[in-house]
Amino acid sequence: MKSVINTIYESKLAELKSKIDTLHAPVKLTIVTVGDDPASKVYVRNKIRLFDELGLECNHVILAEESTKQADLDVLAQKAKHPILFQLPLPNGLIAPDLPAHVDVDGFGSEALGQLVLGQNAVLPCTVQATIDIISAHCGEYNFSGLKVAVVGRSNIVGKPLAIELINRQSTVASFNSCSDLAAVDWNRYDVIVVATGAHGILDNSQFIEGQLIIDVGINRVDGKLVGDIKHHDGIFSAAAITPVPGGVGRLTCLHVLGNAIKLAECP
Amino acid sequence: MKSVINTIYESKLAELKSKIDTLHAPVKLTIVTVGDDPASKVYVRNKIRLFDELGLECNHVILAEESTKQADLDVLAQKAKHPILFQLPLPNGLIAPDLPAHVDVDGFGSEALGQLVLGQNAVLPCTVQATIDIISAHCGEYNFSGLKVAVVGRSNIVGKPLAIELINRQSTVASFNSCSDLAAVDWNRYDVIVVATGAHGILDNSQFIEGQLIIDVGINRVDGKLVGDIKHHDGIFSAAAITPVPGGVGRLTCLHVLGNAIKLAECP
Repeated sequence: MKSVINTIYESKLAELKSKIDTLHAPVKLTIVTVGDDPASKVYVRNKIRLFDELGLECNHVILAEESTKQADLDVLAQKAKHPILFQLPLPNGLIAPDLPAHVDVDGFGSEALGQLVLGQNAVLPCTVQATIDIISAHCGEYNFSGLKVAVVGRSNIVGKPLAIELINRQSTVASFNSCSDLAAVDWNRYDVIVVATGAHGILDNSQFIEGQLIIDVGINRVDGKLVGDIKHHDGIFSAAAITPVPGGVGRLTCLHVLGNAIKLAECP
Repeated sequence: MKSVINTIYESKLAELKSKIDTLHAPVKLTIVTVGDDPASKVYVRNKIRLFDELGLECNHVILAEESTKQADLDVLAQKAKHPILFQLPLPNGLIAPDLPAHVDVDGFGSEALGQLVLGQNAVLPCTVQATIDIISAHCGEYNFSGLKVAVVGRSNIVGKPLAIELINRQSTVASFNSCSDLAAVDWNRYDVIVVATGAHGILDNSQFIEGQLIIDVGINRVDGKLVGDIKHHDGIFSAAAITPVPGGVGRLTCLHVLGNAIKLAECP
């Protein structure tokens, strides 16, 4: 799968570059971080690097963990005229403001999500878009209709919006969560299984068969190593196509922050 | 099932009446109709009658089919200070305006739907709320977690928001649509099956077993008779609990227009 991900990455990047060249509006991004979560630092650095490489403006607003109040974030959101994102997780119970759709580059706000439900060409959360890209590349861009997809996990930023987007594309979608009896599920019934729970080992590679596409969205740190939600048993080979962690969905996600910033610049 | 529906109706009505008594804000509704679609007339009459019986203000704005323009609807939406709905279907390609959540008594607008995705106690589309009521009454109000529910149909006003609400309630949800291979589905796997396709005969009563709850949301006119989406074969008895059409979901739906108007009056 690594080479497939690389191919998708290169082709998406080329597509985005050519879009930038034809745009009349500048592509800008503001990233707000509070404190210095180590994982966030890596994600933010990758986003800034991508914008830098393409000569695009990316402002990084760094707020101190001790002194930042909810009102500070809300003011930044209200003043935003260009795409902005609040890097998660936020400390001290701070909540990312509910951004209006025209600056909501993450697509996490209620306006973008409402447009998504109505099928109105909304900005998709970047991880959702990355997942859709991988399904497109593996199953065919025009083959979402009738595709049997299981989505494991129901977060507001991945599982739920992904299920909605797949329903919009006329896939047959099954949504599972921590209350589902996962042991009783016949996973072989699905063409595609997307696992986005944040719990390593919730499924394992012995459960899948040839012909299936398994997209592992999880990023967990176990014994100092980055691993996905799917456990890969030593000595057990799975004939299914399983996206790697790291270097799978996460590699494409960063690209879609740029893709969404371009989309917002196109239709402000 | 008819008596179950009656019990739900009476208990919901009593609950809403007692809420009205404790409210400090008036409960008002404006219904906008364009032209004189016969089915719409019945629905609108039922809503007005319910508000009248409870001494609540319900304004009916009737616009002529020939002369009404999209801008006329948009102006009504912009001026709305109290709950308002545009009775569907609208003629001549007119589109119901995308109402802000504080007046969106149908819960069809992007703001209400975005709040629904985020699990923010949104106003639910009335048919969705009626379906939830029936599942609550039959399976238990606190038993949605892990409940296996199939939703057949993916409309913006029933299938999609229902699937989202069920995911919010931690049910295991399968969403089917016209591209799904329905003949290959093992329906016995589900605790609850909701059918909302608008196509009579898409499933039939021989396909369900004892212990299952089948909610028929469809209202179709076949040979001059009102029937649901589920075909009831002569001489075949189903041990499943199947809601009737008419007198099932539809009977409760009207009540939730009132319920949503109360909710909007409570939190304007």
